Amino acid sequence: MNIVKPRVLSGFKDRLPAEAIKKREILEKLIVVFESFGFVPIETPHLEHADILVKRGSEEIQKELYRFRDHGDRDVALRFDLTVPLARFAAQHRGELKFPFKRYALGNVFRGERAQAGRYREFTQCDFDFLGSESVCSDAEVAAIISKGFEALGIEKFKISINNRKIMNGFAKSLGVEDRIEDILRVVDKLDKIGRDRVKDELKDIGIDQSVAVKVLDFISLKESLCGFFDALDELKKDDALKEGIDELLEFYELLEAFGVDRGHFEIDFSIARGLAYYTGIVYESRLLEYPEIGSVASGGRYDDLTSNFSKEKISGVGASFGVDRLIAALEKLGVVSEKSTTADILCVNFGKKELTYILKAASILRRSGIKTEVYPDSAKLKKQFDFADKKGFEFVLIAGESEIEKESFLLKNMKSGEQKEMKIDGIVKTLKEQNENS
Amino acid sequence: MNIVKPRVLSGFKDRLPAEAIKKREILEKLIVVFESFGFVPIETPHLEHADILVKRGSEEIQKELYRFRDHGDRDVALRFDLTVPLARFAAQHRGELKFPFKRYALGNVFRGERAQAGRYREFTQCDFDFLGSESVCSDAEVAAIISKGFEALGIEKFKISINNRKIMNGFAKSLGVEDRIEDILRVVDKLDKIGRDRVKDELKDIGIDQSVAVKVLDFISLKESLCGFFDALDELKKDDALKEGIDELLEFYELLEAFGVDRGHFEIDFSIARGLAYYTGIVYESRLLEYPEIGSVASGGRYDDLTSNFSKEKISGVGASFGVDRLIAALEKLGVVSEKSTTADILCVNFGKKELTYILKAASILRRSGIKTEVYPDSAKLKKQFDFADKKGFEFVLIAGESEIEKESFLLKNMKSGEQKEMKIDGIVKTLKEQNENS
Repeated sequence: MNIVKPRVLSGFKDRLPAEAIKKREILEKLIVVFESFGFVPIETPHLEHADILVKRGSEEIQKELYRFRDHGDRDVALRFDLTVPLARFAAQHRGELKFPFKRYALGNVFRGERAQAGRYREFTQCDFDFLGSESVCSDAEVAAIISKGFEALGIEKFKISINNRKIMNGFAKSLGVEDRIEDILRVVDKLDKIGRDRVKDELKDIGIDQSVAVKVLDFISLKESLCGFFDALDELKKDDALKEGIDELLEFYELLEAFGVDRGHFEIDFSIARGLAYYTGIVYESRLLEYPEIGSVASGGRYDDLTSNFSKEKISGVGASFGVDRLIAALEKLGVVSEKSTTADILCVNFGKKELTYILKAASILRRSGIKTEVYPDSAKLKKQFDFADKKGFEFVLIAGESEIEKESFLLKNMKSGEQKEMKIDGIVKTLKEQNENS
Repeated sequence: MNIVKPRVLSGFKDRLPAEAIKKREILEKLIVVFESFGFVPIETPHLEHADILVKRGSEEIQKELYRFRDHGDRDVALRFDLTVPLARFAAQHRGELKFPFKRYALGNVFRGERAQAGRYREFTQCDFDFLGSESVCSDAEVAAIISKGFEALGIEKFKISINNRKIMNGFAKSLGVEDRIEDILRVVDKLDKIGRDRVKDELKDIGIDQSVAVKVLDFISLKESLCGFFDALDELKKDDALKEGIDELLEFYELLEAFGVDRGHFEIDFSIARGLAYYTGIVYESRLLEYPEIGSVASGGRYDDLTSNFSKEKISGVGASFGVDRLIAALEKLGVVSEKSTTADILCVNFGKKELTYILKAASILRRSGIKTEVYPDSAKLKKQFDFADKKGFEFVLIAGESEIEKESFLLKNMKSGEQKEMKIDGIVKTLKEQNENS
């Protein structure tokens, strides 16, 4: 028989246990936060009619789409994000859903980007969206969840930068360039990457007057962390075109405190624009202060009309997304996720038929007490079983030979200290439960 | 702008909150069981090189494969199960994994079957496999997990039918038809559907002698539930070709008891053959006694050589799979899963700016106490907010108007009884925590 070389597609990857355990740990913690605010899960297919996905996507995404003809000669494609399917879902099931509708979704998306280090063609997104309310309360809730999410993950040092597209639009209006705002934002979004001078050049290239460019650049350099920021804000508020956006941001801030969120994690930053054109209100990006090079690990914003491609009836909302793979990388560096290839608490040694039956019964008691218990299936050499426990990161091993069976006892070995203690089953349950509570 | 009709592909479906909540509930309970036995998660891509998937799959599955050329003109396909990717994974990462290796995997798979009621082209599988041990202990563990899984889901009445392919092979050998065993099993597997006479006819069609056919049919009609079964077993054991398989089954039964599993949930049934040719040892199927029409909700078995397509080195193992969609359907009928569109415990009413700030702070306290708390984002009419709470299945609503704020209290309304009680925040936390502990 021919052997097929086992391999994955370029840009795709397996998650081995150590990574899959971390990912599960992270997602479960985020889900607890989502659900604590009343968000519920939904699922949509990985594969959609191509016309559902193609229209909304930027040109770049269309090129990257995994698109093909299926058995029925239908034009189909793999989803490239979870937002377009949400829009389709909300339009299609509008009558069945109760609005305001808050959903979270975890799932893999596909983009045929050029393969490069750290970028994958299949990756996991973790989105949550709050549909059907225009109140700033919903904006503040989504931002509060980002903050609570980081806290739940054990991340202490992070900053969530916020802005309001309405302020930028108002500012453009006051400069008489409101019809060019999308183009301006696209250039301005590159400020961090290409610097002030090249942004000025590029704005010139697209026909923006240099005096306007300077004003835009000065404006977007305004950051809450700068001295005199709130005075500058008061000054800007005198312009009617900017007032609404600024008032929203201030209300947002007030509500954040009611949400029990530390304001110190937030800052207004007018340079945050968020690439996608459909954001229309408050937007946010966040970074981990210890690993700024990772980039934004959670971002989002408000959109006026999510379902415009699928329905004449508007659905506005606000949503955000955690970057799962960036979080895994960051939490590894921070050392706040487990580094084990097992989630089990103890390995039971197998000495052969009689001993196996005895230890299986003990394992069953341990499991009933909520202790995750693995039993070595073969009566292999003790050294081999200990090696296995060691490599997989087991902290405890349970041993029972003939003499223990006679005394109805066990040897509990701590793999770290090497300490070994003869105990009855009750004592073992107690020891391991205490261990779990303290970890 | 053109409106695209929002719709999913034929044979695909969305999961709305009520169903997605149920699915999450089911999978989380199964994961607790898997992990209690030391199984760990892994993930493999949804998309693979087509030659990885094509070889092992049956012809039928090849026809149903979603296969296409990607951007790099690679021949790719969506996975149709989680077993072939596991085989590829185990062969590829053999050096990095520690054997015995126990993994679970939850994920969607794709089959372009003819669309029909209740059959989907994308569906969720929930697999667990125990690789690298040939001991009956690993067979018994996998079977014990099926039983513990059903129990964790609140299912009480189920039956797991077991058989051993070695017994069937031995029996075929004793009849001199060992080279026809695969063909015979394929026909015999249809017994329930087409009946004894048509099986006999079909066996004749493929050239099996009628006297042999009768013996095969009598043999596979042996069931543990029949009187005299174990005597018949003793008789069969006299044949050396059958002895090994029968002894394994008996050892399996002994171990099951050590696993703390109720033997009453199991029965030996020689008609269980399991379709796929790669099973080589003990196999099982299970059914819910109250809903036999749903078919097998969990099945699996032992395979000698999982990775034969990908490596010359053998990896044997035993694995099984829960049918997630069948389980959702069954648990709905049994009434043991939640029927709500929310997982939250309480909805906080929004009366406008001042009241919102007050109730947001209360919500934050409730969340910190582990109570899932949704806040209505708009100061809509009270009736509308109550309607919302009612339709989504909230049990409690929290209300605070001016007079409550003055007294630093709240009204806690029970939506079922209509009862409304003025309380301080501590009392509300206590009431809701008790409620959660009792449910």
